[in-house]
Amino acid sequence: MPELYSELERLAGSDMYPFHMPGHKRNLESTPLKGAFRCDITEIDGFDNLHDENGIILEAEKRANMLYGADETFFLVNGSTCGVCSAVSASVPAGGRILAARGSHKSFYHAAYLRQIDIEYLPVKMIDKYGIYDGYTSEDVEKALERIEKGSVSAVFITSPTYEGRCSDIEGIAKVCHRAGIALIVDAAHGAHFGFDERLPKSAVQCGADLVIHSVHKTLPSMTQTALLHVQGELIDRGRLKRFLRIYQSSSPSYVLMASIDLCMKEMGEHGKEFAQKLIRYRKMLEDDLSGSRKIRVAPLNELEDPAKALIYLQTQYMTGQQLYDILREEYHLQLEMAGERYVLAIISGWDLENGIVRLIKAVLDIDKRMNLYSHEDDGKLGAKETAPRNISDIENALPKTAMKISEAWDEEKEAVSLPEAEGRISGEFITLYPPGIPLIVPGEIFDRKLIDEIGKYLDYGMNLQGVLTEERSGEKVIINGREILCVRQR
Amino acid sequence: MPELYSELERLAGSDMYPFHMPGHKRNLESTPLKGAFRCDITEIDGFDNLHDENGIILEAEKRANMLYGADETFFLVNGSTCGVCSAVSASVPAGGRILAARGSHKSFYHAAYLRQIDIEYLPVKMIDKYGIYDGYTSEDVEKALERIEKGSVSAVFITSPTYEGRCSDIEGIAKVCHRAGIALIVDAAHGAHFGFDERLPKSAVQCGADLVIHSVHKTLPSMTQTALLHVQGELIDRGRLKRFLRIYQSSSPSYVLMASIDLCMKEMGEHGKEFAQKLIRYRKMLEDDLSGSRKIRVAPLNELEDPAKALIYLQTQYMTGQQLYDILREEYHLQLEMAGERYVLAIISGWDLENGIVRLIKAVLDIDKRMNLYSHEDDGKLGAKETAPRNISDIENALPKTAMKISEAWDEEKEAVSLPEAEGRISGEFITLYPPGIPLIVPGEIFDRKLIDEIGKYLDYGMNLQGVLTEERSGEKVIINGREILCVRQR
Repeated sequence: MPELYSELERLAGSDMYPFHMPGHKRNLESTPLKGAFRCDITEIDGFDNLHDENGIILEAEKRANMLYGADETFFLVNGSTCGVCSAVSASVPAGGRILAARGSHKSFYHAAYLRQIDIEYLPVKMIDKYGIYDGYTSEDVEKALERIEKGSVSAVFITSPTYEGRCSDIEGIAKVCHRAGIALIVDAAHGAHFGFDERLPKSAVQCGADLVIHSVHKTLPSMTQTALLHVQGELIDRGRLKRFLRIYQSSSPSYVLMASIDLCMKEMGEHGKEFAQKLIRYRKMLEDDLSGSRKIRVAPLNELEDPAKALIYLQTQYMTGQQLYDILREEYHLQLEMAGERYVLAIISGWDLENGIVRLIKAVLDIDKRMNLYSHEDDGKLGAKETAPRNISDIENALPKTAMKISEAWDEEKEAVSLPEAEGRISGEFITLYPPGIPLIVPGEIFDRKLIDEIGKYLDYGMNLQGVLTEERSGEKVIINGREILCVRQR
Repeated sequence: MPELYSELERLAGSDMYPFHMPGHKRNLESTPLKGAFRCDITEIDGFDNLHDENGIILEAEKRANMLYGADETFFLVNGSTCGVCSAVSASVPAGGRILAARGSHKSFYHAAYLRQIDIEYLPVKMIDKYGIYDGYTSEDVEKALERIEKGSVSAVFITSPTYEGRCSDIEGIAKVCHRAGIALIVDAAHGAHFGFDERLPKSAVQCGADLVIHSVHKTLPSMTQTALLHVQGELIDRGRLKRFLRIYQSSSPSYVLMASIDLCMKEMGEHGKEFAQKLIRYRKMLEDDLSGSRKIRVAPLNELEDPAKALIYLQTQYMTGQQLYDILREEYHLQLEMAGERYVLAIISGWDLENGIVRLIKAVLDIDKRMNLYSHEDDGKLGAKETAPRNISDIENALPKTAMKISEAWDEEKEAVSLPEAEGRISGEFITLYPPGIPLIVPGEIFDRKLIDEIGKYLDYGMNLQGVLTEERSGEKVIINGREILCVRQR
């Protein structure tokens, strides 16, 4: 069976004339995007149908599956977002219950909302040194399942690796889940490169998870918004899974995005090991060459197991992560992925150029040197900024009490309440602290005094605290500056 | 504010090095898709965020909005599918009620399922001559609203133009809806080119609909899977709308897809009238030049108002639509959009080449001539095929009775039931006849004898009858050949 991409190329070079969608008729020659337009078609004869695949798309999915080894693999054109929504919707009945980490991606909460699912939370585990989420052990999950009514939870949802590269013991957790007869869903959006070299962590599929979501644009060379969903074992109803994949994805899926997944899988099949080795080498260069720096370090691989994430942290109070991020961008033209309170995060991959890695190393050493010159004074540019005391673990281990499901509370009528007066009121919105993206409260939970004080403190320190709907153009505005929050209206 | 596309180009040409997603690092030079990879980034500084837009994406949306004139316009990267889901979810409360045409797109039914919405149906109106859906008048909607309990319906959902190019009286229907204080949603996925010339129908936005969904890849030159959602007036809660746009779309939206929408809007702003004129000229060429053919005709514009749809129908029993479609494809290398029982559908646009139109005209005249030579005999290739008697209007005007909501029945346990024994049983699946894509029964409706007989007849004649989940790989298989259907399990 030919590759999707080569067939699209063959069609573009043929005399077959398109009296079908898309309206551009593969006839836009004026922009560098023309290569994409040239391959942009709809479901015509010979090109299969993503939602009912039995030809060239099914074969492409099978080739992807060969690399990961699940029972079936599906191409996703609406990102890991639709993979998470489909996995949760397929494995938990409407109105059912799931066990999950508090810091799960928002698509997880969205699925819970749409399907009226109750969430039981794993205890929040943080690596306080960096202020990021820790992974979970099998004991963590076993204990959590023990305290929940037996048989009431249909699945466990774990994110591994995390955004910052921390892994959970998926193999052990899968065993715990399967002993309990429930499915394990792993949001491995950031782990599609795992398993391509023995020095990389094993993939969540190899570890036995029932459903695994892999973004293929985050660490592999596919286009943004593309992903894979893998399923294996007998716990997941494949018909339900396929139903939700149809619901959460366009009925006009992009052949350019699908071809980019197929090309990416071809690349990984042919050169996957080589790119993994390159990634590991780049990561080692960074760690080795920055080992001499005094105030700026790279978190070692025994702490954050994913080499694709270089967490570059500050061992000084004289600079914030945001300041380091801005200096790297403005002075050195290095665009990093994100800034935390005391760190910046660089994503590296096997498609980086050695020259790029060298530029980053030189820049960090240079900033480190400059900072050492100024280390006892505040020169503005590299100066200190007092930051809020952070006790996220404390707060989160005493999560707010739940009064209503997310699905009930988010749909309720709301009213703005002044923050100090919110004690005892039910939240009508998500309030989330970035980074690391913890929802401090979700719709349906009750504000207590401790949480109100914490939110006040974060606001005082100007930290990035977001309601899910905050912007001017949306009606449901969370007026953070005015210290008002949206609560479920009282009757 | 610069255009999104030109800013992506500027970035690609700069020395800014990407330590962020996507993993390909804009560094794939080996394929014609490279132009797309070059512009494929994530939400970095200066490039805004689709889900919380306040910079370059918001400006691009405002430029699109200028062309259509709603209050706000949103870019969609998960197709009209996510626009329909968001519009329905935002305008009807969970568990609420909506008035809609039976032949609405499946994304409409999916939204009803996810949000537990009750559907009241407008009477099915068909143009029997072609076997396609007719449009609606304001009286149709007014009468339907009168027979429903006042205040129980939150919105009306209309598809206009239809897939085949038939329009409803959106202006009149909007007035009826607004008198009743409810919102009008128009699925105008096929009508994004309306309003760009005075000889084209007015756009649904101009006609006063509250929410309008426009695919921009169907008749305009944007990439597949791209669309717009327009909102105007005071009936729609903008915060709820934005919430659902975030839920139904990837949190990693493709900048290539977004740039393609922006490029398309630029093209329409600068050359929209010219392209509309070209489309009208091509459509007139087809109608004029085929007026001399004896057995194959083009439906005139006073019957199907959208010039982008050329419905080429057979005035003979000696050939089916599928046969005409196959001959055009195999012998003349003309790929049409679809085949109906007695017609084929060609999509034409302002980006067609005159040469393509001429090829289609010549091919049709040639086939017409050949058919006239053989008109009284069956030579196999161009031969007759007996077709099923079709009384879709009759069936559909007596829609099956409803026992449960779609959201209840589709989630129930199911069992396969032999078709003749299904009388009185509740359907657990959609069963749909293509074309025109009518759901003969939806989950929660009761099989009656008349429907069972009709389904049997369609099966006897080998017509394209699909359950929503039919393929081998899905668990919930509708074994049509075995004449079994999935019903809600009896207790």
